[in-house]
Amino acid sequence: MIPRYSRAEMVAIWSQETKYRIWFEIEAHACDALAEIGVIPHEAAKTIWERGGAATFDVERIDEIERETKHDVIAFLTHLAEFVGPDARFIHQGMTSSDVLDTCLNVQLTRAADLLLSDLDALLAALERRAFEHKDTVTIGRSHGIHAEPTTFGVKLALAHAEFARCRERLVAARAEVATCAISGAVGTFANIDPRVEEHVAKALGLQPEPVSTQVIPRDRHAMFFATLGVIASCVERLATEVRHLQRTEVLEAEEYFSPGQKGSSAMPHKRNPVLTENLTGLARMVRSFAMPAMENVALWHERDISHSSVERFIGPDATITLDFALARLTGVVDKLLVYPERMERNLNQFRGLVHSQRVLLALTQAGLSREESYRLVQRNAMRVWEQGADFLTELLGDPEVTQALGESEIREKFDLGYHTKHVDTIFRRVFGRA
Amino acid sequence: MIPRYSRAEMVAIWSQETKYRIWFEIEAHACDALAEIGVIPHEAAKTIWERGGAATFDVERIDEIERETKHDVIAFLTHLAEFVGPDARFIHQGMTSSDVLDTCLNVQLTRAADLLLSDLDALLAALERRAFEHKDTVTIGRSHGIHAEPTTFGVKLALAHAEFARCRERLVAARAEVATCAISGAVGTFANIDPRVEEHVAKALGLQPEPVSTQVIPRDRHAMFFATLGVIASCVERLATEVRHLQRTEVLEAEEYFSPGQKGSSAMPHKRNPVLTENLTGLARMVRSFAMPAMENVALWHERDISHSSVERFIGPDATITLDFALARLTGVVDKLLVYPERMERNLNQFRGLVHSQRVLLALTQAGLSREESYRLVQRNAMRVWEQGADFLTELLGDPEVTQALGESEIREKFDLGYHTKHVDTIFRRVFGRA
Amino acid sequence: MIPRYSRAEMVAIWSQETKYRIWFEIEAHACDALAEIGVIPHEAAKTIWERGGAATFDVERIDEIERETKHDVIAFLTHLAEFVGPDARFIHQGMTSSDVLDTCLNVQLTRAADLLLSDLDALLAALERRAFEHKDTVTIGRSHGIHAEPTTFGVKLALAHAEFARCRERLVAARAEVATCAISGAVGTFANIDPRVEEHVAKALGLQPEPVSTQVIPRDRHAMFFATLGVIASCVERLATEVRHLQRTEVLEAEEYFSPGQKGSSAMPHKRNPVLTENLTGLARMVRSFAMPAMENVALWHERDISHSSVERFIGPDATITLDFALARLTGVVDKLLVYPERMERNLNQFRGLVHSQRVLLALTQAGLSREESYRLVQRNAMRVWEQGADFLTELLGDPEVTQALGESEIREKFDLGYHTKHVDTIFRRVFGRA
Amino acid sequence: MIPRYSRAEMVAIWSQETKYRIWFEIEAHACDALAEIGVIPHEAAKTIWERGGAATFDVERIDEIERETKHDVIAFLTHLAEFVGPDARFIHQGMTSSDVLDTCLNVQLTRAADLLLSDLDALLAALERRAFEHKDTVTIGRSHGIHAEPTTFGVKLALAHAEFARCRERLVAARAEVATCAISGAVGTFANIDPRVEEHVAKALGLQPEPVSTQVIPRDRHAMFFATLGVIASCVERLATEVRHLQRTEVLEAEEYFSPGQKGSSAMPHKRNPVLTENLTGLARMVRSFAMPAMENVALWHERDISHSSVERFIGPDATITLDFALARLTGVVDKLLVYPERMERNLNQFRGLVHSQRVLLALTQAGLSREESYRLVQRNAMRVWEQGADFLTELLGDPEVTQALGESEIREKFDLGYHTKHVDTIFRRVFGRA
Repeated sequence: MIPRYSRAEMVAIWSQETKYRIWFEIEAHACDALAEIGVIPHEAAKTIWERGGAATFDVERIDEIERETKHDVIAFLTHLAEFVGPDARFIHQGMTSSDVLDTCLNVQLTRAADLLLSDLDALLAALERRAFEHKDTVTIGRSHGIHAEPTTFGVKLALAHAEFARCRERLVAARAEVATCAISGAVGTFANIDPRVEEHVAKALGLQPEPVSTQVIPRDRHAMFFATLGVIASCVERLATEVRHLQRTEVLEAEEYFSPGQKGSSAMPHKRNPVLTENLTGLARMVRSFAMPAMENVALWHERDISHSSVERFIGPDATITLDFALARLTGVVDKLLVYPERMERNLNQFRGLVHSQRVLLALTQAGLSREESYRLVQRNAMRVWEQGADFLTELLGDPEVTQALGESEIREKFDLGYHTKHVDTIFRRVFGRA
Repeated sequence: MIPRYSRAEMVAIWSQETKYRIWFEIEAHACDALAEIGVIPHEAAKTIWERGGAATFDVERIDEIERETKHDVIAFLTHLAEFVGPDARFIHQGMTSSDVLDTCLNVQLTRAADLLLSDLDALLAALERRAFEHKDTVTIGRSHGIHAEPTTFGVKLALAHAEFARCRERLVAARAEVATCAISGAVGTFANIDPRVEEHVAKALGLQPEPVSTQVIPRDRHAMFFATLGVIASCVERLATEVRHLQRTEVLEAEEYFSPGQKGSSAMPHKRNPVLTENLTGLARMVRSFAMPAMENVALWHERDISHSSVERFIGPDATITLDFALARLTGVVDKLLVYPERMERNLNQFRGLVHSQRVLLALTQAGLSREESYRLVQRNAMRVWEQGADFLTELLGDPEVTQALGESEIREKFDLGYHTKHVDTIFRRVFGRA
Repeated sequence: MIPRYSRAEMVAIWSQETKYRIWFEIEAHACDALAEIGVIPHEAAKTIWERGGAATFDVERIDEIERETKHDVIAFLTHLAEFVGPDARFIHQGMTSSDVLDTCLNVQLTRAADLLLSDLDALLAALERRAFEHKDTVTIGRSHGIHAEPTTFGVKLALAHAEFARCRERLVAARAEVATCAISGAVGTFANIDPRVEEHVAKALGLQPEPVSTQVIPRDRHAMFFATLGVIASCVERLATEVRHLQRTEVLEAEEYFSPGQKGSSAMPHKRNPVLTENLTGLARMVRSFAMPAMENVALWHERDISHSSVERFIGPDATITLDFALARLTGVVDKLLVYPERMERNLNQFRGLVHSQRVLLALTQAGLSREESYRLVQRNAMRVWEQGADFLTELLGDPEVTQALGESEIREKFDLGYHTKHVDTIFRRVFGRA
Repeated sequence: MIPRYSRAEMVAIWSQETKYRIWFEIEAHACDALAEIGVIPHEAAKTIWERGGAATFDVERIDEIERETKHDVIAFLTHLAEFVGPDARFIHQGMTSSDVLDTCLNVQLTRAADLLLSDLDALLAALERRAFEHKDTVTIGRSHGIHAEPTTFGVKLALAHAEFARCRERLVAARAEVATCAISGAVGTFANIDPRVEEHVAKALGLQPEPVSTQVIPRDRHAMFFATLGVIASCVERLATEVRHLQRTEVLEAEEYFSPGQKGSSAMPHKRNPVLTENLTGLARMVRSFAMPAMENVALWHERDISHSSVERFIGPDATITLDFALARLTGVVDKLLVYPERMERNLNQFRGLVHSQRVLLALTQAGLSREESYRLVQRNAMRVWEQGADFLTELLGDPEVTQALGESEIREKFDLGYHTKHVDTIFRRVFGRA
């Protein structure tokens, strides 16, 4: 966890305090079930909830015990017993440490997923608002970084919206992957613990019982979870890259927000750097990279080895905290993005009307000229625009061979930007359900 | 594509012939829609279907044209026109090359997904059959590679079944990700092509219209697809690793099938190597690695750049062909796996009864001894098993302090393997819906 | 291997024919050594060289034998015996298949490295030529995609030269990593083969004897080799990305070469796409990704497992063939790059003189004004340039507060581009040893 | 950074305190050079060293200033000025922030490399000691996890030694990659700072001047550095995997050290888990994964973007701290590894003499029998060993067809383990220079 790329709410999910609180709840819920099926006294379960619920666990004290026992769960249980008293002997009956550790990890991951889902909701809302704001803001579409044909800035944002809406669906699925609970004992056989305990704890924590576990919850679930975060991060990178491109000095169609008093990094007033989106690009690289060790974690030996654990100590917090931060930062960028429609128009017309050359070409073809002949006519006029900075429409209107084939009004009609944007409403209805 | 890791049906999906056939179908379906909305004559669409449908496209001829035009789609259309005749001018009206290329890629990926789904079905069937066959075959569960507590070989296979059943669900979702069609023109604005064409072609090909595209179908879809294949490959690696462990000389609880006449690699008859599962381990590394460039492909510049294309020429065929081969190979391994229950039993009893020590310990505690006292009693008997190869039950029955706390029948009762397998039916019902 | 991203010479290294020829040479050299130390007759070694050397190995015939024996080396040896006759029994004495396979792989990798080294030499030559050509071509340096201060296009190319010169050194080291030979028998103990055989074969093939091997040559060597190719590919990506940026419509300071008759993809004459460098970006993603499975290959079990083999069948050819193609393509791009100095100048002056604002600021400070005061003066003039398109020098000369602090000639002197390029010769001498 | 996988000395390199101390030294050394070439007074440089050298930088105070200025280097310089007084205005003249940041990062990375080098030295020493201790400890070599032929445990450790000796050479090269210093100003042109300053600072810090930089030191250097750490981590994984295999219950030829009083995780005294080497396996996955974002960092835009920075905030500390911890842990494992020669012998003889079958086969061939005939004879005796637990030597001596071909003493001679270890000294001399 890098503090400057972290937000408090997500960090809290991964704190020692939270972890111990979840451990306690898993144990206490299990006691309820054990009492229900007659393994331990109801009274004990009640006491455990009361005293443990009121306790403030002392992380340093637990660390101290762990240094002695070299076992984190035992250290916690010892500390818990200090609050609960004699009834503590009813805690953890027939359970194995992994039951607590893995169920806790999944609780943390589902909580993290919930935060990420609300991050995505905020991002989607910002994208929708700005998309409608710029639904009709015409801008040049670019393929290969080269001017192609007009589109609107709203369509660009609608595309991003559709992308993150897909990410949301993916995250819902990824959350379900890790929303499981295992209380199945040493090698997953329930030898010392009744499966009804697992069912009760799962329900109480909003999880599904793991249909079959080894000593651990199978790691293909977590691999899928982290791979999904990697894909979402890659979408963050795409939109961040788009903004970085738009903010280039020579393009400058949009800019990350600068507060009024803020200074660029030098005396040059144009020196406003897209540092937020560059930062997002780097963060995306990190989140994406975590998918690899998560996938390598799947092939644990037999009923478990512990190699996954160190990996998860890194990527559990790092992937979720970083993506949370990235989504929030991206939402801020979208929300406050400075958009320059007049610059978009100027760039669009950089080659004075040339963007319409293809339509003129098609019109000449439809007017009966061969494709080769049409191309020749268009190109000779286009080259004057390209090389001498002439105005394309003026050139065409002054070319008798062209005007012979197409009337002036027909030629002028081909310079209508509306031709390119006539289906924007269709696209918006598809993406937003409204236009 | 590595021929020795390839199966014909999947390879065929990626052949030039298949590609051109799909291109033709996309174009011809588009013509139907264009005719329907009055852009081209119905008669032309009919001719295109008839003549193109009957044509055998000549890959070398298309290559030859491409060498001239340096454009693959134009080369194909030129060749197609040689069959269709004058009506060929009605083909590809208002479309852009990417409409054909991207829709074709998605058709190929969905077909590949369908093959992979049937691969998974075959694997699941094999796992289910073998799981029930060995539902009650007791074997030692191992954590950290060290003997832990008993489980059954059927439970091991049930776990793999649950894992691949999840993979199946993931693949269904991944297939839906890429089951889209875009016929939206140069930068995705439908400027020169009516959205109804896209809807028609999508429906005809069993795809969904892409809600909003740029010049290309957004690559987050493909990233998710290949990431999913990476997770599935990681599950292949897990089961392959399990088999490799079981086949180790010192363990030898199971073996890959060897045909009767087959020789091991040397004069030693025990030299049967788990080469199939080792091979699967390597293939898993490859399929997994393809997730990275697929994720890097997402951040294309503006309305598209062509950097994704070279990546997809590798990973499109390689990931699907290799995973198809791997799943089929793994199915064969599972199907014919030689299982040695007697060896499982021997390994389980390697430390003559010691596997029951925990139950004895718990029983002593329940009989009123302190945990420390109980541990001391168990350990001193266990150490004789461990160090001198004694029999644990005999030792316990000969220890007066133990027999004072627990009667002989009670001690004997702790050596019941059935204690560990009593919930196997529960697990099977959860996984297979039957026990 | 993707044919369109492959060059014949590198492909030939990985052909079956080449492989069998190398296998033969390893076996024949080993026979020489075996004869020398008296294990087999000298005459036999001579016959083997003569008949095997003259033979044309029949790949299909070997495949046919392999289908029967399921062992590639045995199949080859059987086929070789068909040429050699009775003396064939002296071939492969005391060797294990991996001796042949691993030494052959390393021969192939070193040959591939040699080709890549000459690719790098060609690229370095092209970079050097173009760097000197544009040593003094002033262009704007950009940080964050935003105009910063002037540099020269030659310096940009010198940087790329330094980068690829480093890549060359890395590749020399990587080549040495894999330039080893192992002829050490079943588990690397030389039980059945004298170490002198290894020494002889190594020397004959230009390799070093592997100091200690298992059944295989340790795979950390190959991991380092492929990781190095990944870094080189990342440098290819950097330069390719630079070109893509320079070719953007709004920047257009350089372009990939277009042949005179070549048409862009549409009627618009400006539509020249940087398709070569976009392609290089994608290829870099692939080559880079191969580093991961190569690293996972290191942890083979005990004295070897075969999991590395399938990985290497992919990445051996794919990484080297693709990088060879990429380096050659990049060399072509550099060699023929269209450079537009006048456009560089125009972009540099996009904000009419503003690029010099920092120097004016420093001069004011040195003239005794406080930094705050200086900033205020510069900024109010700069803002007029920025917002109203004024000329910065004119504005400054018309601002009494500025001219009071700095004389006109002093102000004008700050607009000297030479100030920024005065150390270009130093840089060139560092990089090229001459200026 | 995960505290439990961190060691103090490496963590200290990455502390804020260390960073600010290095920043100060870079600035102060630069002042020396600036004074030398007459840009600032010698007296000022002296004062800066004296006051800055005596100062204790207040991290919280710098953070406070940064919150205001949003610029870390400016915040530090402001704080430094609080100690230095008026002469502070001579600090940082003509330098850009990246000069400080990038040179500092490289100082940190070279210091980290130095620690890692001494880690490797300690590991190499432990491996050498244990290798000689077990030079003649015969153990079975395994290919595919299956018994192959005998080797010695010392040879296994010699192999690991050779591997980590290579890692040491790689790390020396990787250290040289990042041991550079750039003090070259805004876009690397030295416009405002004389190249002699860079040369002086580089020399003072034990670095090389970067031949040509942009605003930043080129990131191919760092990519190579982190890729090298990834390869070293993969070697850690290999040896860790070997130990994990040896400690398996069924193999148990070696064990991680357990302190006398230490308890396994349950009542079963055999439950000693290879948790250290499993942990190392997971840590290797993490360190390896960092190579990917490091390679993606290379392609910065033009003269720099800031996307690399966030990546390096993660992987700079995480990769070096984790690998340092891993190497130290591995050294401890090797140093204290419990080795069980008698168990090695027992495993070797698991198939009572069968390990010598290949030698018998070869002897029969040399005695004139055909290979097929020899195989038949060996196999029929071997099968009785394999299936009925017979002793191979006894069987052979009782088979008239065998004894007819080979005399008893000749047969017995084939059961000499020394045959397999006769070249161990050669191997040791190659690896250690002595035997």
